[in-house]
Amino acid sequence: MFHTVLCDLLGIRYPIIQGAMQGAGGPRLVAAVSEAGGLGILPTFGGTEKELRDDIEKTRALTSRPFAVNITPIGRAFTESRAAICIEMGVPIVTTGRGDPGSNIVRKLKEAGTIVLPVVPSVHHALRVEAEGAAAIIASGMEAGGHVGRVSTMPLVPQVVDAVKVPVVAAGGLGDARGLLAALALGACGIQLGTRFIATVESEAAEWIKERLLRTEETGTIISSLMTGKPVRAFATRILREYEQALGHADSAEDRAALRIRYLKELRHAPLEERTMAAGEIVGMIRDIRTVRELIEGIVAEAATLAEKLYRASREEGGRKRLLPGAARERRRAER
Amino acid sequence: MFHTVLCDLLGIRYPIIQGAMQGAGGPRLVAAVSEAGGLGILPTFGGTEKELRDDIEKTRALTSRPFAVNITPIGRAFTESRAAICIEMGVPIVTTGRGDPGSNIVRKLKEAGTIVLPVVPSVHHALRVEAEGAAAIIASGMEAGGHVGRVSTMPLVPQVVDAVKVPVVAAGGLGDARGLLAALALGACGIQLGTRFIATVESEAAEWIKERLLRTEETGTIISSLMTGKPVRAFATRILREYEQALGHADSAEDRAALRIRYLKELRHAPLEERTMAAGEIVGMIRDIRTVRELIEGIVAEAATLAEKLYRASREEGGRKRLLPGAARERRRAER
Repeated sequence: MFHTVLCDLLGIRYPIIQGAMQGAGGPRLVAAVSEAGGLGILPTFGGTEKELRDDIEKTRALTSRPFAVNITPIGRAFTESRAAICIEMGVPIVTTGRGDPGSNIVRKLKEAGTIVLPVVPSVHHALRVEAEGAAAIIASGMEAGGHVGRVSTMPLVPQVVDAVKVPVVAAGGLGDARGLLAALALGACGIQLGTRFIATVESEAAEWIKERLLRTEETGTIISSLMTGKPVRAFATRILREYEQALGHADSAEDRAALRIRYLKELRHAPLEERTMAAGEIVGMIRDIRTVRELIEGIVAEAATLAEKLYRASREEGGRKRLLPGAARERRRAER
Repeated sequence: MFHTVLCDLLGIRYPIIQGAMQGAGGPRLVAAVSEAGGLGILPTFGGTEKELRDDIEKTRALTSRPFAVNITPIGRAFTESRAAICIEMGVPIVTTGRGDPGSNIVRKLKEAGTIVLPVVPSVHHALRVEAEGAAAIIASGMEAGGHVGRVSTMPLVPQVVDAVKVPVVAAGGLGDARGLLAALALGACGIQLGTRFIATVESEAAEWIKERLLRTEETGTIISSLMTGKPVRAFATRILREYEQALGHADSAEDRAALRIRYLKELRHAPLEERTMAAGEIVGMIRDIRTVRELIEGIVAEAATLAEKLYRASREEGGRKRLLPGAARERRRAER
């Protein structure tokens, strides 16, 4: 079901990839996603070189299916060392985090035979990474959890699809079968899910995070640069709200840096209920903790049923009612 | 094709409604949309009572199909007088702008037999207007042009669909057949298009606006409260950017009010290329000015073709490739 060009490109069964998540998506989750027919992706953000090597080994011990590593471009030395490890250890697929990994890195990975999928927030950015040799592009809307751009998934995906020749994966605001089918309707060849995969049995996220996912509404996230210095969508908390407000009133780079240090310290010592974690706007849709296999197979099966329903709806003709002004009033009055 | 419950509810042929647009969507556009099988909607924002009466009469002279009036809640007296005109003149359908029209207004309209469709930005708001008697709900993402909330269309629509019992229309970030099909996949029974309808032969928008739509990219909009005092997505211009930046540094309500007066004056006297207009993030997708009929019939026909393609894709099974780590590298090397 739903075997697309992405499945051929990555050697996976279903066109569903798991967004890299520091603190929630280690070897256990990554292997579970790949074993269930999707593509698991290891994070590198915040980790040492040794941790990355260990994670790759651990994942390989759990699955023989393809998985990927995500490289967040947080400085040239970091990016280059993580890319070198991926090449050396033969990781077949690398995604690059929101932001620019640099043409040099993409070219080096590509020359080593690695399939590179950059995550991009705009058409402009998509065109650049395509020219640099991206095998496919992950167009990620600003409703996603984690690092975000400014454009939303619904308008972003078709505009990226129209601009590039390589396959496009949709990310941001997707959490179930409806999201998969909507993304494919927009011209994507697959989806990347992040937040939804945190709420799984195999995710390494702490219990308080899973519990928070179950009770947070769709308006319960905020974009803040506190955590990484770049805009990140996360659970909205008092500390993030106050930091963003204070930031608006800071007049110099020094003031802003001092504020960040102060609030980061507060965040580090905050009680559990005031802590935060990257999460996207689909959070309000999460009502259960499932196994990864249940989740992926459920999404694909439901999307297939929905695709048939949509096809039938496309052929639906109604009695063409010519409702004159005022007629609705009379009709509805008559009904009472 | 695509005859949904929305078509039955409103007495229209296709599940496409036109978002109310001050300055772009007068009687000519509204009648053209209704004549082509959609639902045209007259704006009230910024207009007098007499102008609304005249617009309703003019639209009726151009079409006998149903059309609607949008009431933006900019004060109780305004809302009540516009609702009274709609009731008195037998307008069959009323949409209410982003924000809360008040339960009293919805109830009065409903008691008069008017079908009320509020535009909402969140699940919380959707539940409230449903309880007040909304016949259907327009869930509008923050990528839309005009007044916006904080949640994007892709995650908002399915969460509203899950929360309410009445039909849900998707709005925000939609501009073509792919958007229609994606919205239906998310569980909506139809779509509201705004920005895309400005770029039509029948829209009353000035030439500079239509020309600007053709050359603005998806990142070329900004959310600013300059125009109406509430967040509005519009073409990003120097004046809007500077106002928003200055606003962040204003410390009191007086400062903010003074800033708004100053920048509104600057906007009013700005040369054409510095003027702005509400526009959504699909703006980068607009490449031509079409007639309304071409646009609507094109969207529906293409969406039907696409629905069939998606249905076929849902049944697609690939050769299950078990791509071992490193195999991708070898395969791609062999290809070179």
